[in-house]
Amino acid sequence: MNPPQIEIQITDQPIPGVDSAPPGCGAFVTFQGIVRDKENGARIAALEYEAYRPMAELEMRRIVSELLSLHPCVSVRVIHRIGVVPVGEAAIVLHVGAKHRAEAFALAGAFMDRLKQDVPIWKVRAIPA
Amino acid sequence: MNPPQIEIQITDQPIPGVDSAPPGCGAFVTFQGIVRDKENGARIAALEYEAYRPMAELEMRRIVSELLSLHPCVSVRVIHRIGVVPVGEAAIVLHVGAKHRAEAFALAGAFMDRLKQDVPIWKVRAIPA
Repeated sequence: MNPPQIEIQITDQPIPGVDSAPPGCGAFVTFQGIVRDKENGARIAALEYEAYRPMAELEMRRIVSELLSLHPCVSVRVIHRIGVVPVGEAAIVLHVGAKHRAEAFALAGAFMDRLKQDVPIWKVRAIPA
Repeated sequence: MNPPQIEIQITDQPIPGVDSAPPGCGAFVTFQGIVRDKENGARIAALEYEAYRPMAELEMRRIVSELLSLHPCVSVRVIHRIGVVPVGEAAIVLHVGAKHRAEAFALAGAFMDRLKQDVPIWKVRAIPA
């Protein structure tokens, strides 16, 4: 593994290139789940995902609603990709806006745990490198 | 408080508008700390931040290094804004890339806790709305 890349910057200018949060948010967490270059030890070029789509969307919505009652947040946006996703690209992107960071982190982490367990979206194929 | 906004989407296209993660990352967490429209109950237009800059950068770097030994990650990028930051804009943006999501969430959360405690960056003024 390469050494961690660390960049620290202090600036008096607006910070470009990040999604904007809805009004009222003090915290905005974006999680990206990215296809890694290895699957079960073998080098791959891509993963193929399939979903039972109506049920997957419904189930994700149900999970979000349930988690919102535990971790009150202002906004939740989930985008899950299906089909062939090349290495290095995001298979899922989750945006959570909240008044305070604790709720945003808690909801984002819990959603990812529940997604893997309960949502009918599967890796159907690893495409070798 | 408005009801939470929820958006769920499944797509077979690349997901636009998100920062790209360094190679080797399976998880990429972005945290934005945003100026809220109230400070101590009063409506505000902006917050003004000041830093003791060389020490703040050094201290953030020290905290990141320490946290990396607890939560091994691939990349950490911190951008802290100083000066006048209008309501709705990010005062801090933190990007953490890791092989797996647990480390990325853990480092991001812990960094924000330590930042507030230990780093010489202060809110010097709330500008009324």
